[in-house]
Amino acid sequence: MRAVSLFGSEVKFQQVVPEPTAGNGEVLVDVLLAGICETDLQLRNGYMRFSGIIGHEFVGVARSGRFMGKRVVGEINCSCQRCDWCHRGASNHCPSRSVIGILNRDGVFADTVAIPERNLHVVPDSVSNDFAVFAEPLAAALQIHRQVDLRKKRVAVLGDGRLGMLCAQSARLITDEVLVVGKHSMKLERFIKLGFSTQLLGELTHQPSFDVVIDCTGSPTGLETACAIVQPLGFVILKTTVAREHSMSLAPLVINEVTVVGSRCGPFAEALSALESNAIDLDGLISHRFAIDQAVEAMQTAASHEALKVVFDLSR
Amino acid sequence: MRAVSLFGSEVKFQQVVPEPTAGNGEVLVDVLLAGICETDLQLRNGYMRFSGIIGHEFVGVARSGRFMGKRVVGEINCSCQRCDWCHRGASNHCPSRSVIGILNRDGVFADTVAIPERNLHVVPDSVSNDFAVFAEPLAAALQIHRQVDLRKKRVAVLGDGRLGMLCAQSARLITDEVLVVGKHSMKLERFIKLGFSTQLLGELTHQPSFDVVIDCTGSPTGLETACAIVQPLGFVILKTTVAREHSMSLAPLVINEVTVVGSRCGPFAEALSALESNAIDLDGLISHRFAIDQAVEAMQTAASHEALKVVFDLSR
Repeated sequence: MRAVSLFGSEVKFQQVVPEPTAGNGEVLVDVLLAGICETDLQLRNGYMRFSGIIGHEFVGVARSGRFMGKRVVGEINCSCQRCDWCHRGASNHCPSRSVIGILNRDGVFADTVAIPERNLHVVPDSVSNDFAVFAEPLAAALQIHRQVDLRKKRVAVLGDGRLGMLCAQSARLITDEVLVVGKHSMKLERFIKLGFSTQLLGELTHQPSFDVVIDCTGSPTGLETACAIVQPLGFVILKTTVAREHSMSLAPLVINEVTVVGSRCGPFAEALSALESNAIDLDGLISHRFAIDQAVEAMQTAASHEALKVVFDLSR
Repeated sequence: MRAVSLFGSEVKFQQVVPEPTAGNGEVLVDVLLAGICETDLQLRNGYMRFSGIIGHEFVGVARSGRFMGKRVVGEINCSCQRCDWCHRGASNHCPSRSVIGILNRDGVFADTVAIPERNLHVVPDSVSNDFAVFAEPLAAALQIHRQVDLRKKRVAVLGDGRLGMLCAQSARLITDEVLVVGKHSMKLERFIKLGFSTQLLGELTHQPSFDVVIDCTGSPTGLETACAIVQPLGFVILKTTVAREHSMSLAPLVINEVTVVGSRCGPFAEALSALESNAIDLDGLISHRFAIDQAVEAMQTAASHEALKVVFDLSR
């Protein structure tokens, strides 16, 4: 089969790699669409020191098992189901987990991927492939609801990219006051069309005006900006993993008794339900489609400012 | 009167400065004992860009008002009592507050200080001056109980100094499992005598083993150590303000969905109550006493590794 692999910091398309075999409890899934995530770009910078087939956002068709022939999306944490973490419902933090395309497990930028069957969720018929491919990042955006009460809160979303779009729309399911802060007027236009207030980062007044700030920048300076605009006793949600280090003083966190919440993967069932009920508008969020053999170009495009979501179309 | 003032980064003793006048709602308090805090040392490094009389930990005698002649301690945040923050019970975060010896208000390293009467708490007769002078930092340690549920949690306290001692004892009011991590065997001895488990920082295994880590190091590297030993879904409490910057990757916070909680001032009534009931053992925690005219030496001593709490005895 075809696949896109990371060797050190180099992304390579490979025309012929062995097809995976389904392990115990696993099924093979033929990938239809796969999305490039900020994390995939970070992997190139050394994040997680990963080598192997990358990619973790996908919609595909199960080739066997109880979902055989159905369209599925999949949770990315593959847990042991035996440890304390798994037993108390926190299997996303299973210490011996593998993570699809991120940690000790091949990913979905391939014709076929082996995935534990329990990780799979069937996509409702009314949800298109173009929307279903967002199930994983949308679930991650919805994870914020489980961590911080957004009701009646003034929320700022830092980042005008794909994750910012999902987090802003997720936040608006709970509160009316959501400001999106970004670097690019063109990208902010999309938010304005959806009825969001927006502001250019360069024009942002560094006043503590928000109860909750969601950092979707993928930049090591995101936390510092968030700390400058969050109110005392407020919350900063860190949504993006950044491999690079950044230097900042932590004194403002202490003085203002701010709470910083790391936030990673979220509830797939809620994400699919939000898509099925049209509560989240993803129309046009896919800005570029590539065949899998255009991997290098696709990754470059995903890293550029003009791109929103870049996907591999495995049917090509 | 006599006072100790900060000019830029220089601490100076002054034999004759004008006595303060009590403003509206304020009373004069004659200081008996005043403690040197890590924050006082940070002020010298540029923290808060403060100039004026420093010091905020004290026990004294009120010279007027309803507490006239009584021994008192005092909350350090002097709020406007008119803004939203004050009205909803968060006056410690009043944006127009002054803070005794830290922000826009002279401090307690002086014979007399002017303080809003509502900030004062009468010291119970059974609590000695040597213990009462810890009311402010002990209240700060007890603030953690209002922010994170420590019941049945495994807690690590980073820092074997004075604040570490208060936080470790405060944590033990709620949970039995408290490990103290420090750099100095001699200082850790004090914790061992009180029945705490201890570990040298250099011998600390960087395994995620704690539900809650309380950073009392006063060091910019404290958060990084805390992140290395806190479990996924755990809490890191930042108790010390550090002026210096430190570079670190925030990715572990996101991956492990750790919550970092900034923690500052706390409940004085609870602190006095804990002292009155002997729930906290502060015996021998004052390691050095100085007359106020020995200010420079006192500050140097407070910054040294062998010191625990250094106090000014204003009766000298």
